[in-house]
Amino acid sequence: MIRAGIVGGTGYTGVELLRILALHAEVEVSVVTSRADAGLRVDALYPSLRGVIDAIFSTPDVDTLAQCDVVFFATPNGTAMLMAEQLLARGVRVIDLSADFRLKDAQDWSKWYGMEHACPDLINEAIYGLPEVNREAIRKARLIACPGCYPTAVQLGFLPLIENGLIDSEHLIADVKSGVSGAGRKAELATLMSETGESFKAYAVSGHRHLPEIIQGLNVAAGKPVGLTFVPHLTPMIRGIHATLYGQLSGDGISLAAIQSLFEQRYRNEMFVDVLPPGSHPDTRNVRGSNNCQISIHQPQGGQTVVILSVIDNLVKGAAGQAVQNMNLMFGFKEDLGLKTLALYP
Amino acid sequence: MIRAGIVGGTGYTGVELLRILALHAEVEVSVVTSRADAGLRVDALYPSLRGVIDAIFSTPDVDTLAQCDVVFFATPNGTAMLMAEQLLARGVRVIDLSADFRLKDAQDWSKWYGMEHACPDLINEAIYGLPEVNREAIRKARLIACPGCYPTAVQLGFLPLIENGLIDSEHLIADVKSGVSGAGRKAELATLMSETGESFKAYAVSGHRHLPEIIQGLNVAAGKPVGLTFVPHLTPMIRGIHATLYGQLSGDGISLAAIQSLFEQRYRNEMFVDVLPPGSHPDTRNVRGSNNCQISIHQPQGGQTVVILSVIDNLVKGAAGQAVQNMNLMFGFKEDLGLKTLALYP
Amino acid sequence: MIRAGIVGGTGYTGVELLRILALHAEVEVSVVTSRADAGLRVDALYPSLRGVIDAIFSTPDVDTLAQCDVVFFATPNGTAMLMAEQLLARGVRVIDLSADFRLKDAQDWSKWYGMEHACPDLINEAIYGLPEVNREAIRKARLIACPGCYPTAVQLGFLPLIENGLIDSEHLIADVKSGVSGAGRKAELATLMSETGESFKAYAVSGHRHLPEIIQGLNVAAGKPVGLTFVPHLTPMIRGIHATLYGQLSGDGISLAAIQSLFEQRYRNEMFVDVLPPGSHPDTRNVRGSNNCQISIHQPQGGQTVVILSVIDNLVKGAAGQAVQNMNLMFGFKEDLGLKTLALYP
Amino acid sequence: MIRAGIVGGTGYTGVELLRILALHAEVEVSVVTSRADAGLRVDALYPSLRGVIDAIFSTPDVDTLAQCDVVFFATPNGTAMLMAEQLLARGVRVIDLSADFRLKDAQDWSKWYGMEHACPDLINEAIYGLPEVNREAIRKARLIACPGCYPTAVQLGFLPLIENGLIDSEHLIADVKSGVSGAGRKAELATLMSETGESFKAYAVSGHRHLPEIIQGLNVAAGKPVGLTFVPHLTPMIRGIHATLYGQLSGDGISLAAIQSLFEQRYRNEMFVDVLPPGSHPDTRNVRGSNNCQISIHQPQGGQTVVILSVIDNLVKGAAGQAVQNMNLMFGFKEDLGLKTLALYP
Repeated sequence: MIRAGIVGGTGYTGVELLRILALHAEVEVSVVTSRADAGLRVDALYPSLRGVIDAIFSTPDVDTLAQCDVVFFATPNGTAMLMAEQLLARGVRVIDLSADFRLKDAQDWSKWYGMEHACPDLINEAIYGLPEVNREAIRKARLIACPGCYPTAVQLGFLPLIENGLIDSEHLIADVKSGVSGAGRKAELATLMSETGESFKAYAVSGHRHLPEIIQGLNVAAGKPVGLTFVPHLTPMIRGIHATLYGQLSGDGISLAAIQSLFEQRYRNEMFVDVLPPGSHPDTRNVRGSNNCQISIHQPQGGQTVVILSVIDNLVKGAAGQAVQNMNLMFGFKEDLGLKTLALYP
Repeated sequence: MIRAGIVGGTGYTGVELLRILALHAEVEVSVVTSRADAGLRVDALYPSLRGVIDAIFSTPDVDTLAQCDVVFFATPNGTAMLMAEQLLARGVRVIDLSADFRLKDAQDWSKWYGMEHACPDLINEAIYGLPEVNREAIRKARLIACPGCYPTAVQLGFLPLIENGLIDSEHLIADVKSGVSGAGRKAELATLMSETGESFKAYAVSGHRHLPEIIQGLNVAAGKPVGLTFVPHLTPMIRGIHATLYGQLSGDGISLAAIQSLFEQRYRNEMFVDVLPPGSHPDTRNVRGSNNCQISIHQPQGGQTVVILSVIDNLVKGAAGQAVQNMNLMFGFKEDLGLKTLALYP
Repeated sequence: MIRAGIVGGTGYTGVELLRILALHAEVEVSVVTSRADAGLRVDALYPSLRGVIDAIFSTPDVDTLAQCDVVFFATPNGTAMLMAEQLLARGVRVIDLSADFRLKDAQDWSKWYGMEHACPDLINEAIYGLPEVNREAIRKARLIACPGCYPTAVQLGFLPLIENGLIDSEHLIADVKSGVSGAGRKAELATLMSETGESFKAYAVSGHRHLPEIIQGLNVAAGKPVGLTFVPHLTPMIRGIHATLYGQLSGDGISLAAIQSLFEQRYRNEMFVDVLPPGSHPDTRNVRGSNNCQISIHQPQGGQTVVILSVIDNLVKGAAGQAVQNMNLMFGFKEDLGLKTLALYP
Repeated sequence: MIRAGIVGGTGYTGVELLRILALHAEVEVSVVTSRADAGLRVDALYPSLRGVIDAIFSTPDVDTLAQCDVVFFATPNGTAMLMAEQLLARGVRVIDLSADFRLKDAQDWSKWYGMEHACPDLINEAIYGLPEVNREAIRKARLIACPGCYPTAVQLGFLPLIENGLIDSEHLIADVKSGVSGAGRKAELATLMSETGESFKAYAVSGHRHLPEIIQGLNVAAGKPVGLTFVPHLTPMIRGIHATLYGQLSGDGISLAAIQSLFEQRYRNEMFVDVLPPGSHPDTRNVRGSNNCQISIHQPQGGQTVVILSVIDNLVKGAAGQAVQNMNLMFGFKEDLGLKTLALYP
């Protein structure tokens, strides 16, 4: 039994961590912080957790958090980098669900996130927490940078092709659709139900913060710089990401069956990546509430363009679930402990 | 480990049973029938179940089902009554999620369901599977008639008042709202997204089949015939029932605090009925995917009218979850085994 | 051609006024104010209005507004009462869509709205703008208090019964469901899509501001004080109100057919109130975007309880449409000018 | 005043035609056919039309239809081709909203639509009813093949680039998202709210019937065969299409500003195509219920890939609205007569 702390427990990734950890056999959630709601019972704010959690929101404090074995940061960007160093110094492992340690280039980070990085020394130590790429490093890590939701869906979809040099990596296209919970639990006009319900739009087409993160990951897989056009969209639902990925097959002659087989091979031992049978269309509802990524591969009209469809729940495999998957690896638990929940269909 | 069969595995209550039983520590789902989809892998129809269920839909057959310890009927009305007797005769316990054995009066049943009852002899033996009322009888039962979704939400809300004679039981009003999954997985115009999305309506105001079932249950609680106006509505969401119940306080002077206390007392030992703190408004999202019923009590303007708000997930506490709760009781398992899943919020 | 001003043009009732007035044959919208967005083109904020409106949001200013023939207040409560007197003094007619002049008792108003009334002298002059009740007074009015959305749906449903003393007016129940646009265009957690989508709840059961307004209207119709339990609910859709109204028939023996006939008679000459055929269930989608109220009457099991179903679009008949209907009456235009838009189905 | 007939008045495009034509100043809808609902009042099936339409569904019959000046086919594919010839022979103009006359190659049509074409002789005469391309031919046409919903959004987005040879026309990508009303008013499992609500998926990635239609139109614009990857998706809303279009700029050096200017120039005189200011993201809600197409242009990171965003209401500009626009042209009415309705926001 380990003791876990959650900093920023009132956002959607925070409450999703609570949903998962409350039933995790090896974890006791001992600290949940929230500046705004300090003093309030967690289950007063989240009645869905009544009966399983007895915690009270507290003000974030290093001394208190230092009594945990692991601390999750489910905070806005710019918070984890202020506390991570002190916690690590006291022997606490840190899993950051925000973007603070995702980019390896501190200057690039500053450009996209609009502030100086407070803790550039730790950037190199941080392990990018995509188990399907970095499993062994994660096991040994003290500090995990959990991938963003879009980057998870996009990388898992592109990786087998990029790693094997099968597509023109200079002209990748990722057309990705997200439910509104990805925007977080913030009082904003743009995500009111009256604004986003029954409507569909693209946003941030000129440049979204997840772009450099995806490129960084694909660069590593390709062994060279890739070119990516990434267009995020907001779709009128709460949970779910659907990535539609386009690549131009290079060279001649790999068959769709061979690509299918390649994907199946690549993810054969992955518990949470599921390559669907040929001809399938994954549906975000089939991963809603679960830690799974479902993928299918198409080659329309047998042409040069390959289309990969990749779906996840943005709050689970795209955030809290993946964070717990990382924690399981770090502490030597079974990788799927606490993560066996099935998708809620319908 | 017991062996369970599901007859009618392709409807929403069927797939919800599969979602719950697939992770139940004491159950192996050994038979799943579907006339229409016989021969198809279950997870081909329901990709949300990939990796946890290996079954293939089969044609319903008594000999095959007789090898199970328990058979669930998640069928349209009129099917369970054709097979229950033979299964019971072979020592199989039967949990019927349809309406076949809910009404004690076979003639009344015929009137509301539009067909002769094929098996009136079993009606008396069947135990109405509302554990909060019939727990001890359920433990010993061979045949369970699982309550309807509306009746579950309405009865749990009214029971403490009715049992204690605190309201005028001749003029009860139940204004109840359901998500569209309650209509089942049937190809019908009325439940297309284009017809039910972004719209709200009442239906069956002149008389809904759950009316006699609710009245039967409340009659028992009251010890005399009650009068109920029941108005069901369709609300543009998938899961959830919200019952708004109105009663006139009889006599003078029970305070709201005393009513609150009465409810808390009544459900103190119930794992799945949760009386919220005074002043609360339950929200269906807080029970989505869970087997909980959340209830709050109001007395607007301190007047004579008491308002009870009661929410459940129609597919869980209103169907499959309650069925598994019954099964746990019948087989001596812990009552919440396999049912600890938390609500999916947001 | 008259000149109209809109104060508070950035809320949902404001933009709905613009949608209607932009195509109104006798109105030119000459001023649209918004403190927050002053200087911005109206169609930059609302691209749905591109091509039909050339206005720029301005800071509200009496001198500018005084050049209008009529000024609509689509503002939060407490604003219209600060400017109405000056505008009336300059000969401008005022139509207030907020609650400032709805209640005839200034003290009661203060209690429910939490502030002193700044202009109690005008309360008596203000005409409650429900044309189906006050048509002649509206024609001559200088100042209109437009009814709230809930009060419109509830009063239109109850009026024929109350006016004719057919139900026990001391025990009325109004169980009403609203889409989320009723909460306005405000950055608030509670109306985020992640909070309200796919979920249903009651709110303000202990007392909602529309309660005294409804009671005031029904008192007039009854000629004596009525008793009302009013429970509002939030339903996961954008537009629409569905009122389910319960009354106990007094005396003996009015038939459902007679009640149906009474309703048809009461609303025979009303352009915007439509009594559906016996047995109907109105659906909010059938009035979405239109100024219609559709009503049906039921008497479940032929009992003492009569159930009235009444639907409107909260932003049209419940706000902007009714305001324009009032304006048409005040200026001698045809009552339905600019209001013939049909509901958007599906 | 002309007389119009609608064959297939019970589908969503049929009822949308009724919504528009009921208020059209120059049209009387004299015949509305429906095999299934013959004998029923139109407003009994569609209460949203109460008060504006007095028609009764009749069985389709050439003699009756021949009394109309124009007949709209809002039928499943394969019906219009059986009746068009006879109606034309009697001097009736025909506007087909189905796919029967969209493809110029009858064999190609047979391949995609799975039946022999019953009337190949008329294919050549039929004018493809995209006014932004074929306005003059439409004015003189007897037979119009209205474009599909996807083809309308995609072609309007790509045309300026293709016509001017600015992008590599061999590697076009159209990632398009549709609301569920595009699937029509049919009792099918796949479009139940429980199946499509709160979920997102691609479908028909291997080949959708609108693919050859789009290619045919773009071929004409390019003056040579184009290559297109077209991936349609289902998004959980009722109305709206959002096309995200990707092209590789050919040659070097056209600036984004120049492309923006090119689009504005191309559509300067188009009433229903609206090029948004630079940096905009069109939102389907802003065209919901209107005949507008809103378009914006992006060039992420100043790279070689240009991204066009194009939104329409699939039932209006994508079907019934465009059909009426065609009718207006054919009969010499103002092109926007009856089509000035503004989008319903929120």
